[in-house]
Amino acid sequence: MTDKVIVLNGPNLNMLGKREPGIYGDQTLESIEKLCIQTGADLGFDVQCHQSNHEGELVSWLHEANDGVLGVVLNAGAYTHTSIALHDAMRSITTPVIEIHLSNVHARESFRHHSMIAAAAAGVICGFGANSYKLALQALANKRNS
Amino acid sequence: MTDKVIVLNGPNLNMLGKREPGIYGDQTLESIEKLCIQTGADLGFDVQCHQSNHEGELVSWLHEANDGVLGVVLNAGAYTHTSIALHDAMRSITTPVIEIHLSNVHARESFRHHSMIAAAAAGVICGFGANSYKLALQALANKRNS
Amino acid sequence: MTDKVIVLNGPNLNMLGKREPGIYGDQTLESIEKLCIQTGADLGFDVQCHQSNHEGELVSWLHEANDGVLGVVLNAGAYTHTSIALHDAMRSITTPVIEIHLSNVHARESFRHHSMIAAAAAGVICGFGANSYKLALQALANKRNS
Amino acid sequence: MTDKVIVLNGPNLNMLGKREPGIYGDQTLESIEKLCIQTGADLGFDVQCHQSNHEGELVSWLHEANDGVLGVVLNAGAYTHTSIALHDAMRSITTPVIEIHLSNVHARESFRHHSMIAAAAAGVICGFGANSYKLALQALANKRNS
Amino acid sequence: MTDKVIVLNGPNLNMLGKREPGIYGDQTLESIEKLCIQTGADLGFDVQCHQSNHEGELVSWLHEANDGVLGVVLNAGAYTHTSIALHDAMRSITTPVIEIHLSNVHARESFRHHSMIAAAAAGVICGFGANSYKLALQALANKRNS
Amino acid sequence: MTDKVIVLNGPNLNMLGKREPGIYGDQTLESIEKLCIQTGADLGFDVQCHQSNHEGELVSWLHEANDGVLGVVLNAGAYTHTSIALHDAMRSITTPVIEIHLSNVHARESFRHHSMIAAAAAGVICGFGANSYKLALQALANKRNS
Amino acid sequence: MTDKVIVLNGPNLNMLGKREPGIYGDQTLESIEKLCIQTGADLGFDVQCHQSNHEGELVSWLHEANDGVLGVVLNAGAYTHTSIALHDAMRSITTPVIEIHLSNVHARESFRHHSMIAAAAAGVICGFGANSYKLALQALANKRNS
Amino acid sequence: MTDKVIVLNGPNLNMLGKREPGIYGDQTLESIEKLCIQTGADLGFDVQCHQSNHEGELVSWLHEANDGVLGVVLNAGAYTHTSIALHDAMRSITTPVIEIHLSNVHARESFRHHSMIAAAAAGVICGFGANSYKLALQALANKRNS
Amino acid sequence: MTDKVIVLNGPNLNMLGKREPGIYGDQTLESIEKLCIQTGADLGFDVQCHQSNHEGELVSWLHEANDGVLGVVLNAGAYTHTSIALHDAMRSITTPVIEIHLSNVHARESFRHHSMIAAAAAGVICGFGANSYKLALQALANKRNS
Amino acid sequence: MTDKVIVLNGPNLNMLGKREPGIYGDQTLESIEKLCIQTGADLGFDVQCHQSNHEGELVSWLHEANDGVLGVVLNAGAYTHTSIALHDAMRSITTPVIEIHLSNVHARESFRHHSMIAAAAAGVICGFGANSYKLALQALANKRNS
Amino acid sequence: MTDKVIVLNGPNLNMLGKREPGIYGDQTLESIEKLCIQTGADLGFDVQCHQSNHEGELVSWLHEANDGVLGVVLNAGAYTHTSIALHDAMRSITTPVIEIHLSNVHARESFRHHSMIAAAAAGVICGFGANSYKLALQALANKRNS
Amino acid sequence: MTDKVIVLNGPNLNMLGKREPGIYGDQTLESIEKLCIQTGADLGFDVQCHQSNHEGELVSWLHEANDGVLGVVLNAGAYTHTSIALHDAMRSITTPVIEIHLSNVHARESFRHHSMIAAAAAGVICGFGANSYKLALQALANKRNS
Repeated sequence: MTDKVIVLNGPNLNMLGKREPGIYGDQTLESIEKLCIQTGADLGFDVQCHQSNHEGELVSWLHEANDGVLGVVLNAGAYTHTSIALHDAMRSITTPVIEIHLSNVHARESFRHHSMIAAAAAGVICGFGANSYKLALQALANKRNS
Repeated sequence: MTDKVIVLNGPNLNMLGKREPGIYGDQTLESIEKLCIQTGADLGFDVQCHQSNHEGELVSWLHEANDGVLGVVLNAGAYTHTSIALHDAMRSITTPVIEIHLSNVHARESFRHHSMIAAAAAGVICGFGANSYKLALQALANKRNS
Repeated sequence: MTDKVIVLNGPNLNMLGKREPGIYGDQTLESIEKLCIQTGADLGFDVQCHQSNHEGELVSWLHEANDGVLGVVLNAGAYTHTSIALHDAMRSITTPVIEIHLSNVHARESFRHHSMIAAAAAGVICGFGANSYKLALQALANKRNS
Repeated sequence: MTDKVIVLNGPNLNMLGKREPGIYGDQTLESIEKLCIQTGADLGFDVQCHQSNHEGELVSWLHEANDGVLGVVLNAGAYTHTSIALHDAMRSITTPVIEIHLSNVHARESFRHHSMIAAAAAGVICGFGANSYKLALQALANKRNS
Repeated sequence: MTDKVIVLNGPNLNMLGKREPGIYGDQTLESIEKLCIQTGADLGFDVQCHQSNHEGELVSWLHEANDGVLGVVLNAGAYTHTSIALHDAMRSITTPVIEIHLSNVHARESFRHHSMIAAAAAGVICGFGANSYKLALQALANKRNS
Repeated sequence: MTDKVIVLNGPNLNMLGKREPGIYGDQTLESIEKLCIQTGADLGFDVQCHQSNHEGELVSWLHEANDGVLGVVLNAGAYTHTSIALHDAMRSITTPVIEIHLSNVHARESFRHHSMIAAAAAGVICGFGANSYKLALQALANKRNS
Repeated sequence: MTDKVIVLNGPNLNMLGKREPGIYGDQTLESIEKLCIQTGADLGFDVQCHQSNHEGELVSWLHEANDGVLGVVLNAGAYTHTSIALHDAMRSITTPVIEIHLSNVHARESFRHHSMIAAAAAGVICGFGANSYKLALQALANKRNS
Repeated sequence: MTDKVIVLNGPNLNMLGKREPGIYGDQTLESIEKLCIQTGADLGFDVQCHQSNHEGELVSWLHEANDGVLGVVLNAGAYTHTSIALHDAMRSITTPVIEIHLSNVHARESFRHHSMIAAAAAGVICGFGANSYKLALQALANKRNS
Repeated sequence: MTDKVIVLNGPNLNMLGKREPGIYGDQTLESIEKLCIQTGADLGFDVQCHQSNHEGELVSWLHEANDGVLGVVLNAGAYTHTSIALHDAMRSITTPVIEIHLSNVHARESFRHHSMIAAAAAGVICGFGANSYKLALQALANKRNS
Repeated sequence: MTDKVIVLNGPNLNMLGKREPGIYGDQTLESIEKLCIQTGADLGFDVQCHQSNHEGELVSWLHEANDGVLGVVLNAGAYTHTSIALHDAMRSITTPVIEIHLSNVHARESFRHHSMIAAAAAGVICGFGANSYKLALQALANKRNS
Repeated sequence: MTDKVIVLNGPNLNMLGKREPGIYGDQTLESIEKLCIQTGADLGFDVQCHQSNHEGELVSWLHEANDGVLGVVLNAGAYTHTSIALHDAMRSITTPVIEIHLSNVHARESFRHHSMIAAAAAGVICGFGANSYKLALQALANKRNS
Repeated sequence: MTDKVIVLNGPNLNMLGKREPGIYGDQTLESIEKLCIQTGADLGFDVQCHQSNHEGELVSWLHEANDGVLGVVLNAGAYTHTSIALHDAMRSITTPVIEIHLSNVHARESFRHHSMIAAAAAGVICGFGANSYKLALQALANKRNS
């Protein structure tokens, strides 16, 4: 039986590939979601992907990931640094949530150095471009297998 | 004639009863809304309840509470600590808004100690569980009767 | 049998009615204490009221409220913002203490925004004038009845 | 050929004219949008106006202003001071965005002194009431003509 | 008719002359109070002097200075830097209170650089040794005569 | 009758065109002053321009702009971020003063993000190069005509 | 001849044994004072013990310890972290004062990490429960014998 | 023989009487300088008055007050809060300098609460309007006579 | 041909399995190093492991990883939060260094929330226990293969 | 049977007696180690002393003190204020570690006021010169006997 | 051909030798300027010296050093710590400017620890008394010869 | 007779020439040490050079420079900004220590702007590349000759 995994992308990630390739690479959101689905399939996961620019919608999607979901891969984008609502949503479910970032946020502006959600995450992965997603899925597989 | 009172619940409060009962108690949002409607009825209030995970929707509901509403009971959840938009919305209407919290936010993480909206509230009540709602309705009744 | 409740007022509250009515209303301490006794009687409480300008005296009265007292209603005035001694006194007893304020302290000078004692309180109520006391007594009644 | 210009108004600006006229003047959002359309017409612009209380919706509108738009006039209201998502959205498009405010935010509460989005703006104009919009349109015209 | 003036000295000032003469001079509290009474007599004042190590007692003496008192000269000692209670007490009376210090507090440890009570004072005088008291009395005389 | 408008330029602006063209553009102070005079003439203004590296001289020029002057356009350069004296000078006259900057100061070093004078300005315009001056003159014209 | 030593206990220490035994142990103030008198007797000290919840009273007792007293052992409780008055009182006498704490204050809430009085103490001992008192007496004996 | 005393007024004080009379009173600089000369004459002082908007000029005048001058009365205006140069100038001479202010700076904006020069002053007097100057002259007379 | 990968463990990691298993798990350093060597072998890496409690030794090992090394996996332990020397060492080589942590440092004491070295890392992985090492090796493999 | 106690001295303590005797006294490290061994012998302890200027070496010695050691007396010198590695090392063993200092660090430069290791210590003793070591040994004896 | 070098001295340096010799030595400005001219001559420099208490004058002199000047030696005195105008002036010219100080500013008051101009300097030299000037000239010679 | 001078280089300086030549130049540590020895020889110094990545080793070398050494030239690299141990080591010897840096640390990341050791240095020189060493040796020669 395949396990269900949710991949959530936050604000502005729909602009990937069109925006600052020096920082985010030239992959589009579509290619990343394909990579997630493919990688997931290899690991025995049924991966479902969502993107929203709305903090509230990300909160709701986290709630829905409460039952029957093995794990969530969350790139909260800009909300990473300010959203207590996402922090609480992550706390409100028992499903582990892995926080990821395409870029190494610590090497960018100081307002990106602090994560408001990391304390509620199962783990954090950043700086590997699209491979950050891949590693997060691998981390969920490691967890499942342990 | 019954006065209209609006009860607004913010992000993650739809998860009540399913989330950290050690902090929030085991009541669900439904049971709290029933308590509000029942308590309101006893006090001569027509209580209407809404919940949203969207900051923008809470802002809009506050705007709609501008006319013909006796008071608003607002549990803004995580947005309490970050939302200048809610602060401005509370300032944009003449209806008094009472800020409430289920838990004693001052006894939790330091990022919950500061309220961005309290300065625009008529009053603040926190730490009494579901009774925080009840006390807020009572406060509106006291105000009406004075 | 009536339950015993203690109402403690801190520094400068003896000047109520004589001082900045725009902020604190025009009620005197006497009228507030009467309101407490009357409201308490309605709720089945034997309410006893004390006021002191001395931090140390407030500390001692909290100690005395340790046994056979249902709850304490504490308006610590200026000591709210600086007194670790009151915080410790509240922690040193098992009786629940409700922190109250006449005015909405969050809408005043920034040095009144932080409460040193809130983390040790059972709950906090502020901004309702003399009704803050009434609501606190109601909160104790809710607690007793639950 | 007329150039397309987008005017975006953020949270609570739909309450203009109904809210704190001492600070924001007595013009409504409708009268300001008319002023923008009229001023734009004089400058050879096709001005389109949107307002939302949702951070996410403003982010999406910025994305849509990426192609074939000469410039954006953005009054982000309260989100000005907290939204990294808007900052990123402004960075994600090549269209210049001018940040404006009706009031002089520097003469108000300290939490309005810092703009989270200014570093991503082409320029900032504040304090001129409805004329802030007019000046922003003029600035876009200056830019086009240079 | 002579005007009544109250001179209040706070914690540790009873140790004057016995304590750090390099900072506070070698006058005792008694000689300073005599100086005040004598200087006051020359200016047509009936000067009454009190000293306490108790914050609460200083608060109460300020309350008593509310009626029929021309002014208060207050050397609050260490409480200058921490006491919101004294700040509130000064606000609770209409009698002007002049804050004074023997030493130049700004040339000492940084925790003595901020005064919690200055914002509620009519004026501040520091650094002139016992003459700080004399100047404060002169200031009250200037005020009376103007 | 033409209205008198004063354009004041602060420290280092005499070096324009010779200094960091990447940030300030390649216009010289002379060409900017010509632009101001020309733009002003079109708007019915008699524009007079001064530049000084001395904070005190800028203060004095603001004092002289008190009577018979419609408005002041002030690019205070580096003094923007530190000068309380200019803030006070702006407060000491009734003539409106518009703070402008060539570059978007918010996108530069953090010590340029805070303006010490903005709270005393009628409005702020920054980031439009030499057009910042032009827009400020337009803003004065808008004000005159309203 | 026996030397006189004063042991001063500050606010809430009268509640020892009744309060948070996990932090403070289960000894009462009485048993600690007995331990001090007994330990002192062994070291040739005449130990006198006082406890007060009043900052002012602790200040006065320090003044009285100025002459003919070998040393003071001071557990200032909550006042440790806020009292400049105690700091000054310690400075106003030549008798050495040893600051002690039952618990390791550095392992508790952050507002207990800073001591306002340590800079005026001869030495500091914390974290040894009732033995902190014993060690302080031993330290005075070491000093006397050196 | 009369002693020479210098009265220095800093930036914007030449606007006195024309500026914010609610804060500074309605006296002009001329009337204050007359008051100083007259008061000085009564005390046996030859008072000379200077005003400048230039920090550097105030520095130079302080240097000139090094020899044969009994004291300096300095109202440094806005430079009070930022000028290390004035601090150093005060340190570079042996003549005592008394810092004064017309208004109670502690009751105004927070950027006026800190004085950069107070640590180098002989004493500080603020809040007494024009009488602040008079009291400073009296303080110099007290000093001379002691 | 196998690529060389260096795994560096910093201070106290030699105590793994003996220390706070609730935080770090019950694996020993030996078992983790074995896991690294095994995982590396599967990925075609020749993994070499070192551990030191000396900041300087870790610096030197990073220097040695400059040539012929595909990547470094660095768990700098406590030095993560304070070591500019490690930051500089990472900058001084061209080999990518991946910062890892066993625990989710963001969910622990606040002094562990900031990484002094992250800005010099190729990426960061934390919170996955021993699997953090495994994921880092996988990340190097992804990089090699891309 | 004698219990084993380890005394660890950190950086620069090998220079004792040669360095700033006004602060540290004129005892050498050798005389202090002798004092420790002698005092320990009296208390039934086998005391072993080590000194290192290397943070890493102190970390390793703490690890070695894990088994069969009654307690550690640690004067970490300058590392007290910066070393998270020592903090972790103290946490990694079950042996109690007593933090000591020769001087009263709270009366010195502000960068010596905070201890990074105190939260992991069993207790703290400072300000008693060489007797700080003696008291720490006594504290271990008290602990053993209780 | 000799190269032109400018030596600029800022506020209060004209008082050298008359002021705090314990900090600044007993050399006068004249002797230092002679030293500069002499040292410069030995190195093949035509050294010209200026001193001003006016920030604006120092700014202007820096502008004039733009062409045909090998380097500037700048002791900006108190303006070092506050002047963004000097920072900008240094940036506005291509001539290298060496920041120097007579005393070791890092060993003095904390407000002298930060230099506002150092980031715009070619290098910084402090703590060598009059030799700081000599070393700066030597540094310019090194640069010329390299 | 030649004087002995010690040149100490801290962490990562062994990588000079291999690392970020844009910042540090392309000289190697070897070429710099040769420059020091050669320059020293010209000035009559016997220069000995050491480099270590270990904070503790640098501390020990400073101790050894206590006797018979004219001066120390210290480039502490990254430890400059964090090491109280080096600060104390510099204080523990009477030999003057000159702090130097190759680059202008004030023009780099903010965590390099503060020096923990400067207050204990005889002087500071930074920003002159390898010539910083040369100037420091010259400074020691100036000192010897004065």
